[in-house]
Amino acid sequence: MNFASDNSGPAAPEVMDAVMAANAGYEGSYGADGPMERVRAMVREQFEHPEAEVYLVATGTAANAITLACLTAPTSRVYTHREAHTEVDECGAPVFYTGGAKLELIDGADGKIMPEGLRAAIEGTPQGFVHAQQRGAVSITNLSECGAAYTPAEVVDLCRIAAEYNLPVQMDGARFANALVGTNASPGDMTWRAGIKALSLGGTKNGCMGVEAVVLFDPSLAWAFELNRKRGGHLFSKHRYLSAQMEGYLADGTWLRLARQANDMAARLEAGILALPGAELMHPRDGNQVFARFARGVHRAAQAAGAQYYLWPHTETMEGPEDGLVSARFVTNWSTTADEVDAFLATLRG
Amino acid sequence: MNFASDNSGPAAPEVMDAVMAANAGYEGSYGADGPMERVRAMVREQFEHPEAEVYLVATGTAANAITLACLTAPTSRVYTHREAHTEVDECGAPVFYTGGAKLELIDGADGKIMPEGLRAAIEGTPQGFVHAQQRGAVSITNLSECGAAYTPAEVVDLCRIAAEYNLPVQMDGARFANALVGTNASPGDMTWRAGIKALSLGGTKNGCMGVEAVVLFDPSLAWAFELNRKRGGHLFSKHRYLSAQMEGYLADGTWLRLARQANDMAARLEAGILALPGAELMHPRDGNQVFARFARGVHRAAQAAGAQYYLWPHTETMEGPEDGLVSARFVTNWSTTADEVDAFLATLRG
Amino acid sequence: MNFASDNSGPAAPEVMDAVMAANAGYEGSYGADGPMERVRAMVREQFEHPEAEVYLVATGTAANAITLACLTAPTSRVYTHREAHTEVDECGAPVFYTGGAKLELIDGADGKIMPEGLRAAIEGTPQGFVHAQQRGAVSITNLSECGAAYTPAEVVDLCRIAAEYNLPVQMDGARFANALVGTNASPGDMTWRAGIKALSLGGTKNGCMGVEAVVLFDPSLAWAFELNRKRGGHLFSKHRYLSAQMEGYLADGTWLRLARQANDMAARLEAGILALPGAELMHPRDGNQVFARFARGVHRAAQAAGAQYYLWPHTETMEGPEDGLVSARFVTNWSTTADEVDAFLATLRG
Amino acid sequence: MNFASDNSGPAAPEVMDAVMAANAGYEGSYGADGPMERVRAMVREQFEHPEAEVYLVATGTAANAITLACLTAPTSRVYTHREAHTEVDECGAPVFYTGGAKLELIDGADGKIMPEGLRAAIEGTPQGFVHAQQRGAVSITNLSECGAAYTPAEVVDLCRIAAEYNLPVQMDGARFANALVGTNASPGDMTWRAGIKALSLGGTKNGCMGVEAVVLFDPSLAWAFELNRKRGGHLFSKHRYLSAQMEGYLADGTWLRLARQANDMAARLEAGILALPGAELMHPRDGNQVFARFARGVHRAAQAAGAQYYLWPHTETMEGPEDGLVSARFVTNWSTTADEVDAFLATLRG
Repeated sequence: MNFASDNSGPAAPEVMDAVMAANAGYEGSYGADGPMERVRAMVREQFEHPEAEVYLVATGTAANAITLACLTAPTSRVYTHREAHTEVDECGAPVFYTGGAKLELIDGADGKIMPEGLRAAIEGTPQGFVHAQQRGAVSITNLSECGAAYTPAEVVDLCRIAAEYNLPVQMDGARFANALVGTNASPGDMTWRAGIKALSLGGTKNGCMGVEAVVLFDPSLAWAFELNRKRGGHLFSKHRYLSAQMEGYLADGTWLRLARQANDMAARLEAGILALPGAELMHPRDGNQVFARFARGVHRAAQAAGAQYYLWPHTETMEGPEDGLVSARFVTNWSTTADEVDAFLATLRG
Repeated sequence: MNFASDNSGPAAPEVMDAVMAANAGYEGSYGADGPMERVRAMVREQFEHPEAEVYLVATGTAANAITLACLTAPTSRVYTHREAHTEVDECGAPVFYTGGAKLELIDGADGKIMPEGLRAAIEGTPQGFVHAQQRGAVSITNLSECGAAYTPAEVVDLCRIAAEYNLPVQMDGARFANALVGTNASPGDMTWRAGIKALSLGGTKNGCMGVEAVVLFDPSLAWAFELNRKRGGHLFSKHRYLSAQMEGYLADGTWLRLARQANDMAARLEAGILALPGAELMHPRDGNQVFARFARGVHRAAQAAGAQYYLWPHTETMEGPEDGLVSARFVTNWSTTADEVDAFLATLRG
Repeated sequence: MNFASDNSGPAAPEVMDAVMAANAGYEGSYGADGPMERVRAMVREQFEHPEAEVYLVATGTAANAITLACLTAPTSRVYTHREAHTEVDECGAPVFYTGGAKLELIDGADGKIMPEGLRAAIEGTPQGFVHAQQRGAVSITNLSECGAAYTPAEVVDLCRIAAEYNLPVQMDGARFANALVGTNASPGDMTWRAGIKALSLGGTKNGCMGVEAVVLFDPSLAWAFELNRKRGGHLFSKHRYLSAQMEGYLADGTWLRLARQANDMAARLEAGILALPGAELMHPRDGNQVFARFARGVHRAAQAAGAQYYLWPHTETMEGPEDGLVSARFVTNWSTTADEVDAFLATLRG
Repeated sequence: MNFASDNSGPAAPEVMDAVMAANAGYEGSYGADGPMERVRAMVREQFEHPEAEVYLVATGTAANAITLACLTAPTSRVYTHREAHTEVDECGAPVFYTGGAKLELIDGADGKIMPEGLRAAIEGTPQGFVHAQQRGAVSITNLSECGAAYTPAEVVDLCRIAAEYNLPVQMDGARFANALVGTNASPGDMTWRAGIKALSLGGTKNGCMGVEAVVLFDPSLAWAFELNRKRGGHLFSKHRYLSAQMEGYLADGTWLRLARQANDMAARLEAGILALPGAELMHPRDGNQVFARFARGVHRAAQAAGAQYYLWPHTETMEGPEDGLVSARFVTNWSTTADEVDAFLATLRG
C-alpha cells in the first residue's frame, strides 16, 4: 500500500534486462556507445523528427537546468508555474545553471499555466528596461505538479504566445509518458509540432533506475548542451548504462505501456476514493497522481494500517476533527497492481 | 586487446548482483534507502572513522566539484597539479561549482605535487592582497593522472604544509583502490590519518556502472555538501541504485580485489613492454596505468592488429620514422585477463 | 518643477568642495587615502560603534549586492519585500553576487515588511529540506520604496524574529538619512542597537555624485566584503574621490541637514497636493517621497506645463476620464526649494 | 618624488572643470544625460567609427570584466597574457562576470602576446573536445603591464590569427592614450581597423577621478553590455558625473596631451636612469612606465630620501649586496613635472 511517490518504486524488468545486456565487454565511453546510437534513432522515429538531438542525464533536475542554461541568459527570466519543480524542488538548480536567470512565477489552476497568465507575465516584464531581468524562456510541466495534463492544443496556445515574443518553450516531462497516455497524444504532436523547443523526457519515475532524455528539437542547441552537461558533471563515463536503460524503456512501446498501467491504477484508485463519503478531487486526474480530500478519520485509519502517501500540500496536517477533510496526494507507478489498489481501497473503506 | 581506458570496461558481477537485488519493491528515495545505510556503515568501518559522512554521486567530476564547493570560497584558489583531472578534463566544473575559485596549477613529476611545489605555490599567493584570489584549498589526485601513487607518508607531508596555512586538503581518488593496492596502505592511513579532509572514492573506473562516494572526514561539511549536490542536480531520486552499486563494490573486499587484478595485469603488461627493444617507462607504474615509449613500428603493427590504447599526451602522433619512439598510455581494468595481456604482448613483439 | 527622482538632482556644494580639496598632489590608492581614514572615524563616532568597518562603493546596487554576498550562501534565501530595489531594480545583482541565492518575497503595506509577514516567510521555508533553498538573511529598506520609514522599534521587532532563526538582517539605506530625519532617530538606534548587521548608507540620492557607505557592525565580515568588492570591480583605484564625497557629506551634520531640507519640501508638497479636490495619499510620507492620487485632469495640465514626475506604479497610464484619479510619485531632494514647490503647486491648482 | 603609480596622482583640471560644470540643476539619470551624448559623439568622431557604442564605468576591472562577459561563454577560454591585469590584479573578476570562463595564459616578452604564442594557445585548445573549455576570445593589453606598446601592425597580426578561428579580440586600454602617443597611432588604426571588437579606454590613470569608456565596435554587443553592467552594479544613477569626466578628458585632445606629458616625463626619467652606472632597462619603454635594474645602493639611498616607487616584481627585495642590482618600476603621470624628475634623478645620482 505504497502510494508515496513514483520515485519509490522499482525499475521495470525490460529496463534491467537492457542494462544487463549492455554489461558485456568493452564499449565506447562518454556517449559513444552502441546503445546510445539506438536510443537516438528510436527517439527520432517515435517523435517523427529526424534532426532531433538526444542527450541523457541521470536526474530530472539536471535535465531541466542544463536545458534552461542553453535557452536563457543570466540577465533574463524563465516564465514558469509557481508550483513547478524548477521553483519548488530543485534548490535553485535552474538559477545555478543559467548563471542567475530569474524564475518568474505564474499562478494557474491545477499546476498549469494558462494563456492569459503567460501573456500577463511576459507583458509585465518591462522590455528594454535595463533595471530588470528581461524576457527569456518559458518552461511548462506536463504532467503538471498537480497531476493535470496539457493537451497538444493547450501547448500550441502557449507556444504561440511565446512565439509572439520570440521566446523558446521548454517542457519538463518528468511524467511525459503519463501525459501522453492521459491525453492520447503522439510524442510529436505534444512537443515540436506544438512549438516546443526542448523536452525533458522522464524515464526515472516511469520504470528506469535513473535516466532522463533531453530532446532538442532545435539542433543548434546541441553543442551548448554538451558543454553545460559536462561542466555540470553530468556526462557519464560509462554512459552505456544510461543508454541501455533508455533503450529498454523506449523499445517496443514499453514506456507507454508502463505509463498506461500507472495511469489505469490511478484511475482505479480515483474511483474508489471518490466513492468515499464526502471525498472530492482537488485537481483533475490525467495521469498517475490523484489529489483528493477525504475524511480525516479515514486518513488516520489508513495510516494506522500502514498505508504510505503524503498529505498535500506540505502544510496540511493530521490534526483536527475526525470528520473534517484532509487533502492528500497518491501516486501510482508501473508496478502498482489492481490488487494493491483494491487492498488499499478496502482499508480506506474501513 | 583494449587498453584504452578503465571507463571502457564492464561492471563487475558483484556490483550488478547488488543492483539487481536492490530492485525489489518499494524503497526510500533521495538517499533514505537501506543500501545507503549499509554503505555508510561499511565506509566508516573500513576507514576506521565512525563519524565520517558519506554521500554518493554518479560521476567523478561531480564528486570533486561539489566537494571543492564546500571547501573553497569563490574568491580563493585551489592548489592542484597542472595535469589534474579538475584542470584538464572537467570543462571548468570546479570553477562552476565553487562560483569562481581559481585553480592554481603546480608542476611536478609523474602528476604528483611535491612539498616544495606546494609550499612555493601557497607562498606565491600574496596574503591579504585584495587584488588577487586568496589561499583556499589543496587538491591531490591518487593515483595521479600519470599513474603514480602518493604513499601515506607523502600525503602526510603535503597535509602538514597545508595545515601550516590552515588549508584543507581534498583527495581525488577516482582510482583510489588502485592506489591503496599499489602502496599496500589502509584507507584510513591514506586519508584522514594523513590529514585529508574529503575524499572522492571512485567506483566507476574500478567495476561499477557509475558511482563515486564522497567521504567527508569533517562532518561539519555535510549539510553544505547535501545542498550543493542537490542544486547541481546530483541527488538521485531512486538513490538505491547508486547505493547498491557501492554496496556490492565495498562488501567483502571486492573493491580491493578488483583493483588488485587491474594492477597485476598492468604489471604484467609493463614487464612485457619493457622487454621490447628500446622501450622505456615515462612514469613509474603504481596502479593500473602504464605510460611507456617504444618503437613507432611496433605501434603501427599493434594498431594494424586492432589493439586499442591512446598515444599520450594527445599531441603525440603516429607520424615519423619507423624506429623512432612513440609515447602511449595503457590502462587495464578489473576484467583484464592474463590471456588478453599476453595476446597483446605477442602482437607487440610481432 | 522636477520631482522625477532624487537621482536627477545635483550634488551639494559641501560634497563638491571636499572633492576639489582632495584633488591635490599624490594620495594613497585603493582605499589607503587620508579622507577614508576620516570617513571611518566619522562613521564610528556618529553611529557610536567604535568597531564598525566602513567601505565605500559608487552605487546602491553594488552596496546591497556585495553585502548580501557576505551574508548568504548560494543555497539560501534572502527575505525581502516584493517591491524592494533588490528585487525590482537591480537586474538580478543580488543573485549574481551571492552566486544564486533566492529572493523570497514578502508582501506588506507601504513597502514595509511586517513581523507576521517575516515570520510566515521564514516558517514557510522548510528547514532541513534539501530540495529547497534554505533560510539565509533578511533585507529591509529604510525608507521603503513606498516612502515609508521603519522606526527603530519596528526594526527591533524584525531583528528579534530574525535572531530567533539566527538570520542576519541587512538594511538598504539608500535614503537612510531621510529615514533618520523622518523618525527623529539616531544612527545607532536605527541600526546596530536594533540588531542590524550591515547597512548600505546612501550618499548619492542625498547630495553626493555617486557614493554609498557600507557599514558592517559585525567586523568579521570585513575581509569577505573587501574581496567581493574587488572581484565585482568596485574597488576604486583613485579611491580618494569616493572618500572625499563621503567626508563632505558626513562632516558637520551635512547629510542630515540635506535630508531635512528634502523631507521638509516633501511635506510642503504633500500638504499642497492633499488640498487638491479628491486627492489622497497612497502611502504615509515619512521622507522625501510623496505617493498620491489626484484628478487626471490636474495631471494632464501639469504635464502640459512641463512638470516632471512619474505616474506610479509603472502600469499606471494617463488614459481615462478627466475627473478619474491617477497615482503618481513625487520625489524631492536637498536642492528643492520652497519656491519650486510652491510654483508646482500653483500649477497643479491650475 | 612619487613614481609609485599613476593611480596615486590627481585628476586634471580640465576633467574637474567639466565635473563642476555638470553639477548644475537637474539632469537625466542612468546614462540619459547631456554630457553622455557629447561623449558618444566625440568617441565616434575621434575613432572615426560612426556606429561605435560607448558606455562608461568607473573602474578598469569593471570595463574588462563586463566586456568579456559579452564576448565569452562560461564554457570557453579567454586567451590572455600571463601578466595581464585580468589574471593578476582583478581577484577573478573576469571569471565572475563571464560565469566561469577560463583565462588561458600566454607567455611573451614585455607583457605582450606574440603571434606564435597566440596561435599555439588556440591550437592547444582541443576543438570539439567536450571535456575542456573551448576557444572563446582574445584579450590584449595596450600598454602592456610591462610598459610596452603594441603597434597597430602588431595588433593586426594578432587579430588576423584570432579571425582565422573566429574569435573576437578585446583590448584592455587602461593606458590606451599612452600607447597611442607612444606609437604615434590613431585611435581607429589601433583598434577597429586592426580588428579589435571592444576597447576599454582608460581615463582614471591618465587624469580622471574614476571613469573608463568601453567602446564596442560591434554594436550588436550593446544591449548585453548594458544588462551586464547593470547587474554588476556599475550603472551610475547620477551618471552625468562619469560623463562629465570623460567629456573633459576627450575634448580638445586633452587625453592625448595628458598622456604625452606622462610619456615625456617617463622618457626623461628613463634617460637619467640609464646614465647610472650599471643600470639597464628590463623592458622597452613605450609609455609612462619605466622598468629598470640598477645598483641596490642607489635604491637604498633613494628610499632614505623618501622617493616612492615599487621594486618589481613583488618578489624583489632590498636585501643583498650594495652593488648588486635591484629591479623596479617607475610610473609617471600627467602631473609629473620635469623638475620632479630631475630632482629624483639627482637623488639617484647621490
